[in-house]
Amino acid sequence: MKRVAILMGSESDRAVMEAAIPYLEHFQVPYEVHVMSAHRTPDRVIQFATTARDQGFRILIAGAGMAAHLAGALKAHSSLPVIGVPLPGGVADGLDALLSTVQMPKGVPVATMSVGKAGAINAAVLAVEILSLEDDTLQERLEDFRRKGAKL
Amino acid sequence: MKRVAILMGSESDRAVMEAAIPYLEHFQVPYEVHVMSAHRTPDRVIQFATTARDQGFRILIAGAGMAAHLAGALKAHSSLPVIGVPLPGGVADGLDALLSTVQMPKGVPVATMSVGKAGAINAAVLAVEILSLEDDTLQERLEDFRRKGAKL
Amino acid sequence: MKRVAILMGSESDRAVMEAAIPYLEHFQVPYEVHVMSAHRTPDRVIQFATTARDQGFRILIAGAGMAAHLAGALKAHSSLPVIGVPLPGGVADGLDALLSTVQMPKGVPVATMSVGKAGAINAAVLAVEILSLEDDTLQERLEDFRRKGAKL
Amino acid sequence: MKRVAILMGSESDRAVMEAAIPYLEHFQVPYEVHVMSAHRTPDRVIQFATTARDQGFRILIAGAGMAAHLAGALKAHSSLPVIGVPLPGGVADGLDALLSTVQMPKGVPVATMSVGKAGAINAAVLAVEILSLEDDTLQERLEDFRRKGAKL
Amino acid sequence: MKRVAILMGSESDRAVMEAAIPYLEHFQVPYEVHVMSAHRTPDRVIQFATTARDQGFRILIAGAGMAAHLAGALKAHSSLPVIGVPLPGGVADGLDALLSTVQMPKGVPVATMSVGKAGAINAAVLAVEILSLEDDTLQERLEDFRRKGAKL
Amino acid sequence: MKRVAILMGSESDRAVMEAAIPYLEHFQVPYEVHVMSAHRTPDRVIQFATTARDQGFRILIAGAGMAAHLAGALKAHSSLPVIGVPLPGGVADGLDALLSTVQMPKGVPVATMSVGKAGAINAAVLAVEILSLEDDTLQERLEDFRRKGAKL
Amino acid sequence: MKRVAILMGSESDRAVMEAAIPYLEHFQVPYEVHVMSAHRTPDRVIQFATTARDQGFRILIAGAGMAAHLAGALKAHSSLPVIGVPLPGGVADGLDALLSTVQMPKGVPVATMSVGKAGAINAAVLAVEILSLEDDTLQERLEDFRRKGAKL
Amino acid sequence: MKRVAILMGSESDRAVMEAAIPYLEHFQVPYEVHVMSAHRTPDRVIQFATTARDQGFRILIAGAGMAAHLAGALKAHSSLPVIGVPLPGGVADGLDALLSTVQMPKGVPVATMSVGKAGAINAAVLAVEILSLEDDTLQERLEDFRRKGAKL
Repeated sequence: MKRVAILMGSESDRAVMEAAIPYLEHFQVPYEVHVMSAHRTPDRVIQFATTARDQGFRILIAGAGMAAHLAGALKAHSSLPVIGVPLPGGVADGLDALLSTVQMPKGVPVATMSVGKAGAINAAVLAVEILSLEDDTLQERLEDFRRKGAKL
Repeated sequence: MKRVAILMGSESDRAVMEAAIPYLEHFQVPYEVHVMSAHRTPDRVIQFATTARDQGFRILIAGAGMAAHLAGALKAHSSLPVIGVPLPGGVADGLDALLSTVQMPKGVPVATMSVGKAGAINAAVLAVEILSLEDDTLQERLEDFRRKGAKL
Repeated sequence: MKRVAILMGSESDRAVMEAAIPYLEHFQVPYEVHVMSAHRTPDRVIQFATTARDQGFRILIAGAGMAAHLAGALKAHSSLPVIGVPLPGGVADGLDALLSTVQMPKGVPVATMSVGKAGAINAAVLAVEILSLEDDTLQERLEDFRRKGAKL
Repeated sequence: MKRVAILMGSESDRAVMEAAIPYLEHFQVPYEVHVMSAHRTPDRVIQFATTARDQGFRILIAGAGMAAHLAGALKAHSSLPVIGVPLPGGVADGLDALLSTVQMPKGVPVATMSVGKAGAINAAVLAVEILSLEDDTLQERLEDFRRKGAKL
Repeated sequence: MKRVAILMGSESDRAVMEAAIPYLEHFQVPYEVHVMSAHRTPDRVIQFATTARDQGFRILIAGAGMAAHLAGALKAHSSLPVIGVPLPGGVADGLDALLSTVQMPKGVPVATMSVGKAGAINAAVLAVEILSLEDDTLQERLEDFRRKGAKL
Repeated sequence: MKRVAILMGSESDRAVMEAAIPYLEHFQVPYEVHVMSAHRTPDRVIQFATTARDQGFRILIAGAGMAAHLAGALKAHSSLPVIGVPLPGGVADGLDALLSTVQMPKGVPVATMSVGKAGAINAAVLAVEILSLEDDTLQERLEDFRRKGAKL
Repeated sequence: MKRVAILMGSESDRAVMEAAIPYLEHFQVPYEVHVMSAHRTPDRVIQFATTARDQGFRILIAGAGMAAHLAGALKAHSSLPVIGVPLPGGVADGLDALLSTVQMPKGVPVATMSVGKAGAINAAVLAVEILSLEDDTLQERLEDFRRKGAKL
Repeated sequence: MKRVAILMGSESDRAVMEAAIPYLEHFQVPYEVHVMSAHRTPDRVIQFATTARDQGFRILIAGAGMAAHLAGALKAHSSLPVIGVPLPGGVADGLDALLSTVQMPKGVPVATMSVGKAGAINAAVLAVEILSLEDDTLQERLEDFRRKGAKL
């Protein structure tokens, strides 16, 4: 059963965000990948966010650049933990997306990662850390991963 | 009949955003003021944006700080011109909100003003400029305002 | 009859600013393109700005980099809505031009877009949104464009 | 039984970090607060991090300013989810601490919040969201909190 | 006969820009002070710039904040040396005005000083240095000023 | 007789700084070019600065990157007008050199240009503007240059 | 006997950090190079730092990028002088690592160099300067190096 | 016999730089404090730097703001280790002075501390660390200081 959703605002974000996949597969965590835009296809975002928990998802990972509203839009419509991955491409080359992603109002947090591929990878690892809190098998894989230098 | 809506994410933004009001009143442009949050009360934002044109609004002015998603959320749900006013308060003291507001994806523009009260005032003046394109009385008031130094 | 003017400070800005053209043509909005510099050919700028409304223009789109005074110079001499597109090339690679463009004094607004081609495209879409306020055909094209994902 | 640890580098950080407490208490999540420095008392940090899971902790929240190494030092020694809260006070007034906190190497994520009190509050809410994944009572409280505007 | 003009965009800039005056008076260089805005009263700026040399001026000092177009607008209309003093007040607290002032196109330089009062003072000293190139009395005063630590 | 010195901290700056030369030659202003470093060969800098006026120089143009002390070191030892050209190459890619160059203490100004080649060119044009104050032939060439669009 | 240790967080930092080696060899200062990560292999860092003085080391040079905790982690566990070299690669391309490296708490300094290869070279020269305080032969080599322009 | 010199560009820097004194006195390291400016009194700086080693100094600590050339000017004229303390006050409130101080050319390092009082304190502690390399009594005091939390 799928546990983690990887979402992104545009097809052009796919190469960066899919850096998360080998990590999820290493830990054998089932996932789905979807493209949807907070500004161009807002109804899809709302639909996904409001049904995600019932579909079995436990963690939503969202990557977006520039105004970078996707993670926040998901958080507005879901109480699941949302992990935000800022993407480069704006005038401040990712620092803008970082500030848009991390500076959420009180009460509606987005767990923010660093910009780009390293952020996508760490979003996967954080998702594993969260899921491992109640999953001893996953926790063993995590400790093993860390003992080997936290690399695949 | 109301033409301009002034929207803001939080009651604490009111003092800044209401700097627009004397300008709208000087030009005799009817307006409404509402508080609604893209993250805390997203359903109100969607409801407002999707019905705004039918309610008679022609221009939406939105002020928000930090992640500053309000203007973008309105634009996602309305084809009316949206004017964004970035507000100070984030770690980069308004520059963050400016970048969140202005860096919209292609096809969904937000007309962005400067940060804070000067931005709220100029949002009002831009709204008047837009409405005056088809309103000779308003255009005369605008030319008169400019002849006198563009000040109240 | 022409409605939108696309202005830029230098021939080297043309490739970026002309990204607006397919959008204006998609919406069948007539336009003109001119090169003029606020610092090298200031008299041409004043001449254009002061006669633009009588020539039939409704919206002025101005792209400039570095000190980026062109949009502001047009606004100083015209009451038409001015949309500013900051261009990269300065020491802060467009952030400088963004701040020069957006931070206008009270009473003389420039509707600012994001830096570069995305900004030029959104300037065109904002111009269409403004013109569609009193043009039902244009508004239908706009709603259709948005339903299809706000892309050409 | 305690579930969340709130850690900070210096007594002077306490006023900011304790903004998290009313939120943890609202959700009835047991917590502890400790002061320890990655640079002045590194042995205490290592001792705490390596024993935290066995002590019953599920989430570590760490606040630090300037070089802001505390969250990263905890992450180096624990596989529990670590939430980092950047604090103001450095030359870039929190942006420096944000970049030090969020830019972790691949494989060792820190879930980063915004700078200062809003970040401390959101660290608490994120901790609740994580714990609620396997706790229906907590999830009900969370949905209730969100229905009421995500405020205390 | 007046040699130096001190110009500023708004009455609110006067306190900063008048820091230049004691230095001009120390060196016995005649000056005038005027307020005029590149955006609100552009015709006054053009009128002043195009007649400045014939009025006897040799150096134009211009202070402005935010978009900071005044120095550039003067330079567009005069071949006299223009010294720009960026003023604080924008979102980047003077760094924005500095970049707007200094980043002029090729061929139309503005000699830029640091932000605020120190910049106004140094504008006066630079004006003296320029005038002293052909004025031995002024040069003696300048050398004397420097021998005494370059302070009044 | 030489009037303008073009100085730079390193041979690697030569390609940028020599962009000034065609402009000085167009205006028939004699110049010299020298490489000397404020940190590696400080005695040469002091020797040059203290004798420059007696050698006939009227304007010193100095280009430097990173800490960018050359213009300031010359100003410390000469009362001639010093024009500073910040060069790219530091961590902030020229913005650092700009701030090092422009932020001189009160009483010891450096007339600062924009970063890189455009700054070197404008340093030459500013030098011409200064020299033309007492040279009618040069002033005629300057007006002619401006009438033709301020370009070579 | 080895005197200087060059440490770095990752193999990918080696090309930059080894720019220090020709300088140490020119001055005939014995050194070692090691890769160890404050986050992935923290126990190695602690082991190295706590035994470095007894192994004969006098200066520790540490290069790291992004969160850049390595120099600080060494300083937490050793009273030897630690020289930090910030490396590019983060969202602010080295400025982030610079701020993480330099902004240490009171009492635990890291002597910070500029970003990248120039910083690695200067770390070597600073190490030589420190060691030469009690080594006349080394001091003579240093004075000779400086007389020849401070270059190899 | 004096070992450490604390130098600063202006009397107004004294309050910040003297934060170093209690630390030097705690470790019983003799010091002197002098005010001298790289730009206003350059001859005093050269005189001090060229004679410092023969006067018995082993470490030069220099604090300066804005263009912040003092540490670099000392380094240009002395082979002793120079520690730079950037001071706030410029347009980037110390970040500018940090970049001016740290970005020295290859071969002429300045050991840079953080901005302001914390930097002045850490300059003193680094000086002690360097002097303790050949002074067992001082090293014992240093270890004792660190065992007690690296605080006075």
